[in-house]
Amino acid sequence: MPSSIKTREVIVSQYSDIISRNGLGPADISGGTIAVHTPIDGALIAEVHETSPDQMVEVIAAANEAFRAWRTVPPPVRGELVRLLGEELRAAKEALGALVSLEAGKIVSEGLGEVQEMIDICDFAVGLSRQLYGLTIASERPGHRMMETWHPLGVAGVISAFNFPVAVWSWNTALALVCGDAVIWKPSEKTPLTALACQKILQKAMARFGDAPKALHQVVIGGAEVGEALVTSPDVALISATGSTRMGKAVAPKVAGRFGKLILELGGNNAMIVGPTADLDLAVRAITFSAIGTCGQRCTSLRRVIAHESIKDELVGRLVKAYATAPIGNPLDAGTLVGPLIDQAARDRMQNAIARAAKSGGTVHGGEPVNDAVAGGAYVRPAIVEMPGQTDVVREETFAPILYVMTYDALDEAIAMQNDVPQGLSSCIFTNDVREAETFVSALGSDCGIANVNIGPSGAEIGGAFGGEKETGGGRESGADAWRGYMRRQTNTINYSRELPLAQGVKFDI
Amino acid sequence: MPSSIKTREVIVSQYSDIISRNGLGPADISGGTIAVHTPIDGALIAEVHETSPDQMVEVIAAANEAFRAWRTVPPPVRGELVRLLGEELRAAKEALGALVSLEAGKIVSEGLGEVQEMIDICDFAVGLSRQLYGLTIASERPGHRMMETWHPLGVAGVISAFNFPVAVWSWNTALALVCGDAVIWKPSEKTPLTALACQKILQKAMARFGDAPKALHQVVIGGAEVGEALVTSPDVALISATGSTRMGKAVAPKVAGRFGKLILELGGNNAMIVGPTADLDLAVRAITFSAIGTCGQRCTSLRRVIAHESIKDELVGRLVKAYATAPIGNPLDAGTLVGPLIDQAARDRMQNAIARAAKSGGTVHGGEPVNDAVAGGAYVRPAIVEMPGQTDVVREETFAPILYVMTYDALDEAIAMQNDVPQGLSSCIFTNDVREAETFVSALGSDCGIANVNIGPSGAEIGGAFGGEKETGGGRESGADAWRGYMRRQTNTINYSRELPLAQGVKFDI
Amino acid sequence: MPSSIKTREVIVSQYSDIISRNGLGPADISGGTIAVHTPIDGALIAEVHETSPDQMVEVIAAANEAFRAWRTVPPPVRGELVRLLGEELRAAKEALGALVSLEAGKIVSEGLGEVQEMIDICDFAVGLSRQLYGLTIASERPGHRMMETWHPLGVAGVISAFNFPVAVWSWNTALALVCGDAVIWKPSEKTPLTALACQKILQKAMARFGDAPKALHQVVIGGAEVGEALVTSPDVALISATGSTRMGKAVAPKVAGRFGKLILELGGNNAMIVGPTADLDLAVRAITFSAIGTCGQRCTSLRRVIAHESIKDELVGRLVKAYATAPIGNPLDAGTLVGPLIDQAARDRMQNAIARAAKSGGTVHGGEPVNDAVAGGAYVRPAIVEMPGQTDVVREETFAPILYVMTYDALDEAIAMQNDVPQGLSSCIFTNDVREAETFVSALGSDCGIANVNIGPSGAEIGGAFGGEKETGGGRESGADAWRGYMRRQTNTINYSRELPLAQGVKFDI
Amino acid sequence: MPSSIKTREVIVSQYSDIISRNGLGPADISGGTIAVHTPIDGALIAEVHETSPDQMVEVIAAANEAFRAWRTVPPPVRGELVRLLGEELRAAKEALGALVSLEAGKIVSEGLGEVQEMIDICDFAVGLSRQLYGLTIASERPGHRMMETWHPLGVAGVISAFNFPVAVWSWNTALALVCGDAVIWKPSEKTPLTALACQKILQKAMARFGDAPKALHQVVIGGAEVGEALVTSPDVALISATGSTRMGKAVAPKVAGRFGKLILELGGNNAMIVGPTADLDLAVRAITFSAIGTCGQRCTSLRRVIAHESIKDELVGRLVKAYATAPIGNPLDAGTLVGPLIDQAARDRMQNAIARAAKSGGTVHGGEPVNDAVAGGAYVRPAIVEMPGQTDVVREETFAPILYVMTYDALDEAIAMQNDVPQGLSSCIFTNDVREAETFVSALGSDCGIANVNIGPSGAEIGGAFGGEKETGGGRESGADAWRGYMRRQTNTINYSRELPLAQGVKFDI
Repeated sequence: MPSSIKTREVIVSQYSDIISRNGLGPADISGGTIAVHTPIDGALIAEVHETSPDQMVEVIAAANEAFRAWRTVPPPVRGELVRLLGEELRAAKEALGALVSLEAGKIVSEGLGEVQEMIDICDFAVGLSRQLYGLTIASERPGHRMMETWHPLGVAGVISAFNFPVAVWSWNTALALVCGDAVIWKPSEKTPLTALACQKILQKAMARFGDAPKALHQVVIGGAEVGEALVTSPDVALISATGSTRMGKAVAPKVAGRFGKLILELGGNNAMIVGPTADLDLAVRAITFSAIGTCGQRCTSLRRVIAHESIKDELVGRLVKAYATAPIGNPLDAGTLVGPLIDQAARDRMQNAIARAAKSGGTVHGGEPVNDAVAGGAYVRPAIVEMPGQTDVVREETFAPILYVMTYDALDEAIAMQNDVPQGLSSCIFTNDVREAETFVSALGSDCGIANVNIGPSGAEIGGAFGGEKETGGGRESGADAWRGYMRRQTNTINYSRELPLAQGVKFDI
Repeated sequence: MPSSIKTREVIVSQYSDIISRNGLGPADISGGTIAVHTPIDGALIAEVHETSPDQMVEVIAAANEAFRAWRTVPPPVRGELVRLLGEELRAAKEALGALVSLEAGKIVSEGLGEVQEMIDICDFAVGLSRQLYGLTIASERPGHRMMETWHPLGVAGVISAFNFPVAVWSWNTALALVCGDAVIWKPSEKTPLTALACQKILQKAMARFGDAPKALHQVVIGGAEVGEALVTSPDVALISATGSTRMGKAVAPKVAGRFGKLILELGGNNAMIVGPTADLDLAVRAITFSAIGTCGQRCTSLRRVIAHESIKDELVGRLVKAYATAPIGNPLDAGTLVGPLIDQAARDRMQNAIARAAKSGGTVHGGEPVNDAVAGGAYVRPAIVEMPGQTDVVREETFAPILYVMTYDALDEAIAMQNDVPQGLSSCIFTNDVREAETFVSALGSDCGIANVNIGPSGAEIGGAFGGEKETGGGRESGADAWRGYMRRQTNTINYSRELPLAQGVKFDI
Repeated sequence: MPSSIKTREVIVSQYSDIISRNGLGPADISGGTIAVHTPIDGALIAEVHETSPDQMVEVIAAANEAFRAWRTVPPPVRGELVRLLGEELRAAKEALGALVSLEAGKIVSEGLGEVQEMIDICDFAVGLSRQLYGLTIASERPGHRMMETWHPLGVAGVISAFNFPVAVWSWNTALALVCGDAVIWKPSEKTPLTALACQKILQKAMARFGDAPKALHQVVIGGAEVGEALVTSPDVALISATGSTRMGKAVAPKVAGRFGKLILELGGNNAMIVGPTADLDLAVRAITFSAIGTCGQRCTSLRRVIAHESIKDELVGRLVKAYATAPIGNPLDAGTLVGPLIDQAARDRMQNAIARAAKSGGTVHGGEPVNDAVAGGAYVRPAIVEMPGQTDVVREETFAPILYVMTYDALDEAIAMQNDVPQGLSSCIFTNDVREAETFVSALGSDCGIANVNIGPSGAEIGGAFGGEKETGGGRESGADAWRGYMRRQTNTINYSRELPLAQGVKFDI
Repeated sequence: MPSSIKTREVIVSQYSDIISRNGLGPADISGGTIAVHTPIDGALIAEVHETSPDQMVEVIAAANEAFRAWRTVPPPVRGELVRLLGEELRAAKEALGALVSLEAGKIVSEGLGEVQEMIDICDFAVGLSRQLYGLTIASERPGHRMMETWHPLGVAGVISAFNFPVAVWSWNTALALVCGDAVIWKPSEKTPLTALACQKILQKAMARFGDAPKALHQVVIGGAEVGEALVTSPDVALISATGSTRMGKAVAPKVAGRFGKLILELGGNNAMIVGPTADLDLAVRAITFSAIGTCGQRCTSLRRVIAHESIKDELVGRLVKAYATAPIGNPLDAGTLVGPLIDQAARDRMQNAIARAAKSGGTVHGGEPVNDAVAGGAYVRPAIVEMPGQTDVVREETFAPILYVMTYDALDEAIAMQNDVPQGLSSCIFTNDVREAETFVSALGSDCGIANVNIGPSGAEIGGAFGGEKETGGGRESGADAWRGYMRRQTNTINYSRELPLAQGVKFDI
C-alpha cells in the first residue's frame, strides 16, 4: 500500500478547503481550548470553544423556552422544517461527507453514506410528522371514549460519539424536532467540527422555515462536565447517549435516579455465525466490509466469526487473502478502504488486545501498525485472530479492526457462543438452511437487538429500529416507532354521559 | 357512624374463615418471622416465613431455568394458562376479595373490584397471546426482507405495594406469562397473605394446564433486602415496581446501572380541575369516590381539586355535606364506604400533613381520627382542606384521604397548577366546554400519564396503558402495548438475494 | 378397509343421540320442508323448516332493531357475551363435534378441531373487545385534534358452506358481536342442524349474559331465495359469504351495486411446491393431511403438487403408499381418516374430473368409488393424478380428494405454475433453502392470500387473517385486523381553537 | 360584482400562457376529438386526442409489464420517485394551480391549495415507503413463525372527476407508486389538460429518477367507453373511481363481478349541525367556505345546515349577509371567491333544484344566474334555502352552491336528520358542548366517513383517511392506512421445526 504522495501543503490546503466549504470560519475553529486533530495525519485542524458551566445553564433554559414554543407548532409544520433540513443536507452532502472523513477518518464513500443516512431519516421523519399515531380504544363504560395520545416531551440532550459524528445526531434530531422537542447536542470532543457544520445546515433550514424558536437546537462542546450538566439536569427530559458501555454505566443511574428518559446506544460485540450451507462468496464480502469498514470502529462492526468446522479453514483462507488486498491509507483518497484509527491510544488498545489474544492461544493474521500510510495517523492492518475459544479478550469490545474467529459443531452451540458476551447490539448468520436461519431469529436465537440473515451486522436501514439489548443499553433509534422515545404518552378517558359508572363494576354511592 | 358491633370471637372466626377459604393453612400463616396485622382492628392474623438471602439465589436460578423452558411454549398456549388463571380467579373472587379487605382494609366492593380487574386483565392477555405483534417493514434493498419481532425477555421481578395487593400483580403476571417470562413476586410485607393466596390460585391453573415449569412463578416475602436481591441481580431482566417515589429513587439507579429493564409505578398527586360549566352532581360524586375511596390510599386517589372561583363555594359545600354522610368503619361490613388506613403510622402522617396545611393557611373540614369505628384500627374522617395556594404540603403525596381545594380564574392557570407538582400520574377536568376539555388533553394540557374528562383520576380500565410521568416513574402497565415492557425487540433483515448491497448506497468492494 | 359393522339400528340410535345431545328436539328437526341427509349413509336425519320470504322481512327488521340496541353496549361488555359463548362451546365440544361429523361427514378429530377453532376465535374476540383500535393522528392545524375511530356497522348476513358448517360462522359471529353488529346466519341447506345447535349454544350464553337483544343473532334456513333476500336487502350492511366462486360471482355485483360491504371466501386451488431440499417426510405427511383430510372438501385442501423433477418420483411413490393405508369409512369410527363426500353429486363430479384428467394425459392412482365403506354414503379412494402439465381440469376447483402432481425445473417456473390459476386462496412451498422460501413469500412469489413454508395450505391458525385473492374473492376473516370488516371507519377532526384555518394553506376570507 | 374587464385578447393570451407554462404544446392540445372549454367563459381551449379501444388494450398490457418490473424495485427506492415528483410539483405549483383554475374554474387560492395537497401527499408517501407495515404474529405451534405482509397489487385504474382534477390523482398515484403498482389515469373529459400536465411533471421526475418503467404511469382520455375498458379488464387489479353515485352504481357491480378491487369516492350530501352553544362567528365562516367554495362543487361541499331553533334566525341572517359580499367572477382574478359552475348544464340543474325546493315550501335567498360576471361562463349567486323539512330535493346531491337550512330541537333529532340521506361522506357539528360533540362522533352519531367538530365538512388533511359510507361508496384515500387499498395482503406461516403439528389440535396420522 503506497502512502499518500501529496505534499504537506496540498494536504493542509485540502483540509482548509473542506472546513471552509462547510461554512466554518475563524470564529468557529480558532481561539478555543479544545484542540481538534484529524486522524488522517494527526494535524491540528481547529481549536474550538468549550461551553462553560454557566453557559450550560443558559443553554438548558433557552432550550426549554424553545420547547414550550415549538410544541405548539403542529407536527406536520414541524415536519416541514425537517424536510428543509433534508434539502439542505442534499445540497451539503459532498462537503459534509468530506468533513466526516477529515474529522473521523472515514473513507469517502462512508462519509457520503453517513450523510445519505441523514437525508433518509429526514424523509422518514417528514412522513412521521403526519402520523405520530396513538390509539383510540374501546371503553367498557357506556358514554365513554378512550384514547392514547403522544405529546412532545421536552428538551432532548443528544450525546454522540466520534465514529458516527453526524448520522446519530440526525437520527435523534429529525425525530425530536418532528416530535416537538428542542435539542441540545453534545458531540464527541474529537469531532466538534462536523457538529458545528450540522448546526449551520440546520440554521439554513430554519431561516427558510421562518419562525422556529432560536434555541430549538444548540450545540454544546466539551468533555465530561458538559455531559454531566445535561445528564443531571432535571430540565433535560431525555438523554439520548451513544458511546461506550462505561459511559452508559455512568450516565444511566443518574438519569434514572431523576426519572429522566433514556435512550442508550452503547457497546457491541457483534458476531456472525457461518453455517455449512453459507454462500462463502457473500460471507467473505460481508465479513470484510463489516470487520474492516470504518477501520473496525462502528458500534456494529463485526468482531467475532463463529464458523462451522466444515468451512472454517476455507473461510479463514479467503479472508486472509481478502484482507491482504484492502488498500490502507488516506481516507480522502479514492481507492482507500481502510483509513486510520481515531488516535494512537486506539492503536495501542488494539495492539494490546491482539497480544492478549495471542497469549490465550490465538493465531494472529495481520494487525500490525502501518507506518508508511500517512505519517502521523494511527494506521493499522486489520487483524484476523483464530481463537481456540471465546476468551475474556474476545468477550470485550475493542474498538479496532480485530476479528476473532472461532468454530462450532452444532447450531445451538454457535448461538450460545454468540449470546455469551455482555453486549447485545448486532448479530447475523450466514446460511442457506431455512431451519438455521429461522432458529437464529427466533426466541431461542440471537439475544441482540439486531439479528440478520445473510447480511453483516452493520449498515442498518433507517426503517427498522436500531439498538441493542444487555450492555448495549436497550435504546432504539431511527425507524419503526423509535419516535415514541421523544414523546410522552397519555391515556385519556372522556365521559360524555350523565352517569359516572366505575370500572370493574365497583359500587360507591354516597 | 356506629362501630362494628360484632364480638371479638365472631371477628376472629370471620378472619380465620376468610384465610382458610383462600386455601391458606398453618404452614402458610404460622411460624414465620413476619407478622401480618389486619388494618381492620390491628389483630395479628399471620406470621409468615421470610425468604432468606440463600433462598433468593435459588429462587432466581430456578426462575431463569423456568424462563428458558417457558419461552419455548408458543404464546397462544401460554395464553391458555392465563385463561385458566382467569377461570380460577372467577371461582375465587369472593374469597380473594374478602382477603384483600382483611389484609389491606378495603371495603367489600373494592376488594371484589380488584379481583374483577385481575379477571379482566386475564381475558385481555389471552387475546394478546395471539397478537404480540411486531412489524414487517419495507426494505430499501432488492431481495431483502425486514421485520421487527418481539421475544420473551427473561425473569420479571414484580414488587408490589399494599394498596393494590393483587391487581397490580395480575397486571404484571398475566402479561409476563403470555410474553414468555417467568415471574418472581415480592409483595408488600404488609400483604403477604393475598400473595400466597394468588400463588395457590395460579398453581391450580398450572395443575390444570399440565406442563408449565414449576418455578414459573414464585413468591418471595420480606423487606428491603429481599427487594434488593431482585433489584441488583443481573439475572432478573425486568423490575416492575409499584410503590413510593422514594422507593423508586432507590431502585431505578441500581437497575439502570446494570442495564435491566424497569417499569416504575410510583407516587401520584392527582388533581381535578372543576370548570365553570362542570356538572357538579357528577363532580361531587367523582370527587367523593376518588378522594375517600380506599381511604385515600390509591396511587390514583384524588388529592387536589382546582376549582373555578365561580363554583368553588358551592362545590366545597356539597363535598363537606357528602363527606359527612360517608359511613366509616369495618370494611367487611356491607354499608361501609371508608375503611381504615393501613396502620397507625399512616394516620400520624395524615394528622401531621393536615396540621402543616392548617399552618399554611388551610381551612380544614374533617380529618380527625375516628376512634369509635373499630378498636385497634387507624380510622379517620376524610379531610377537605381549603388552601390559599399550592403550598409544599400540597405538592407532596400524603397517602391518606386529604383533599386540598384551591381556586383558579383562567384555565391556563389551572393547568399550570395541575402540572406544578413533581408527580405525574393521573389528572382530570370536569367541564362541559369543548375547548377546555380538549385543551386539557392536548400537548399544552395535563402533563400526567392519565388525563380524563368528566371522570375522576382513579379507576382506570385495563384496556388503556396505566402509568405516569415525572416522579411517577414513566412505566406503563396493563392495556394498550404495555406488554412490550415484558419482551425484547429484535430488528431482522433477511437477504435472500445473491447480492450484498449496502444501505445508504455505500460502496466497499474488495 | 372394512365397512362399518354396526347394525342399522345402532346407527340410527347413534344419530338420534348426537342430535338430541345438541339440544335439538322434534320442533327443530321434523315437520319442515328441507330434508337433511347425513353423508355417512345418506339417511334422512331431519326435516327442517324453511324461512319464508315474509319471515325474511321480519328477520331483517328485527336484526336492525337489535343492532341499534347492541351498538350502545360497550365493546368489552359485548366481549363478555362472546366469552360466555366460548365457555358454552367448551361444554358442548364433544356433542357439537359429533354433529359436525354426522351432518358434514368429517372424521371425529376434525369435527372436534372445528369446534376448537370456534373456541379459539371466541378467546381472541374477547381480547379484541378492549382493543378495536383506531388512531389518533397528528393534525397540521394548531388547536386541532384528529382521530380515526371504528363504529359498529349494522346487520351482518353470514352465508356459510357445508364443509365448515360451524367454524366459519364463529369466525364471523364472534367478531361481529364484539364489533357491535347483529347477525343473520344462513347456513348451507345441507347442514342446518349444526346451525340450529349453535343458535341454542349462543342462546345459553345470552341467557347467562342477561340483556342482549333477542334478535341479536338469528338463523334463517333455505336455498337461493333466502340468500337473495339477504344479499339484496339495503338493510343488511355486510354480506360475509363462504362458498363457490360461482356463488360469489352472483352475490358480489348485487351487494356492490347497493354499496353494501362484502367479505367473500370463495374457491381455492391450492398448490404445494416441493423443492429439491424439501424434507420429504414432512412433505408426505403435509400432503396427505391437506389433500385427503375432510375428504378433499376444505376450501384450503391441497389440489396441486408442483414437484421438482429431482424428487418427484420418490414423492409420488411415497404418496401412493401413504394413500393406500388411509382408512376410509364411517367418520364417526375412531380409526377413520377419510369420510364420505357430501353427496353422490360430488362423487360424480370427482369421477368426471378424473376422467378428464386421464384424457389429458394424466396417470391416475386411486380415485375410484368405495362401495364397501358404508352403504348409502359417497365414499371414494382419494386420487393422485400425475399430469403432464397444468391443463384446464387442473385449473378448476373440484371439491373432492384429487391431487394433481406436476413437475418443474426452476423455481420461477414453479411459482408461475402456482399462480397460473384463477383462484388465490392458499399455497405453500416445502424447501429447506432460504432463498427459495423467501422468494416464495416475496412480492415475486405466491399470489395467494395464504403462503406457507413447510406446512400445508390448510389448517390456518385464527391469529392470522384468513382469505384469498383473485377468484377467492379478497375477503379476510378471523385474525389480524379482520374485525374491521365488521365496522365502519370514521375520520374525525376536532377544532378547539378560536380560529378556522383551512388545510393546504387555502385562504378564503369573507 | 363587476365582470372581468379584460379584453378578449388579453384573456386568450392569458389562457395560452397558462397552458404553455405547463409544458403543453400543440401536439397535446390540438387535433383531437375532445373539445375542452374553460368554464371561465366557455372558450375552447384545446382539442385533445381520445384514447381508442385498441390503444386501451396496449395501454393495459404495457401497464402490466411496467408493474412486473416496478414491483421488484424496493419500496424506499420507489419512494424516491415520489419524492422527486413532490419536488417537481413544488416547482410547478403556480403553473399547475393556474391550469386548475382555467380548466376547472377554481379560484386561484383553491387551485394552489389543490397542488399543495399533491405536494403533501408526496411527502407523506415518501415516509410510507419505508413503512408499508405488516405484522409479525404469535403462532400457536412450536417452531413456527407467522407474519402478514403486503405486496404490490398490479395495475391501478384511476378515474377522476373534474372538480378535483389533480389532487385526487395524486392521492392515488403517490400511494400506488410507493406500493409498487402501475397507474392508468382516466381524468374527466372536462379536465384532460391538467392530467396531461401532471403526466409531464411525473415524467420529469421519472427522468431524474432514472430507470422507472416507461409505462409506469399512463393517461387515457375519453368518455364512458374508455372507463369501461378499465372497469371490465381482468388486468386492471384496482379501480379507484371518484365521481357521482350514478357512476359508482354502474362501475361497482362490474368490478365486483370480476373480483377486482375497488376504491369508490362518490356523492356526498354533507351537513352541519349548529348547536345552541356554537361559536357563530366560526360557524358562519365555516359554512360560507364549505358551501360556496369551489362554487359548491366539492364532494365535501356543505349542502345542509341543521340549525338549533334558538340560533337559526341569527345564523341565517348572518349567512345571507355574508353571501351578499362574496365576490363572484373570473376565478383567475385575485379577489374572486366564487368562480363559475363547470358548465351550463350544471347551472340548469341548480336552477331546477331551487325551483323544486321552493315548491316544497323553501324560502330562497340568492341562487340566481349571474350574467354580468364573465360572458360565456355559468356563474351563479350561491343560494340559501330555508326548508320546512328534509324533502326529496334536499336528500339529493345537487352539484352546485345550494345550502338547505333546516331546524331542530333536540340533538337526537338533528343526528337523525343528518343521517337520513343516502350519502355518507362528510358531516360536522358546531358546538361548544362536550356531550354534544362527543355524541356526534360516537357510534350513535354521524354515519359518515368524516365527522368533524367545529370545522366544516370540506378541506380534509391528507393525514386522515378520506372517504365515506353508504352511497359514497366506502373507499378510503390518502392518509392513515389507505395505502393498503393498493396492495395485496398475505398471511405467512413458516415451519422451521421438524414436526408438523396441526392447528386446533387436530390429529391426522397416517
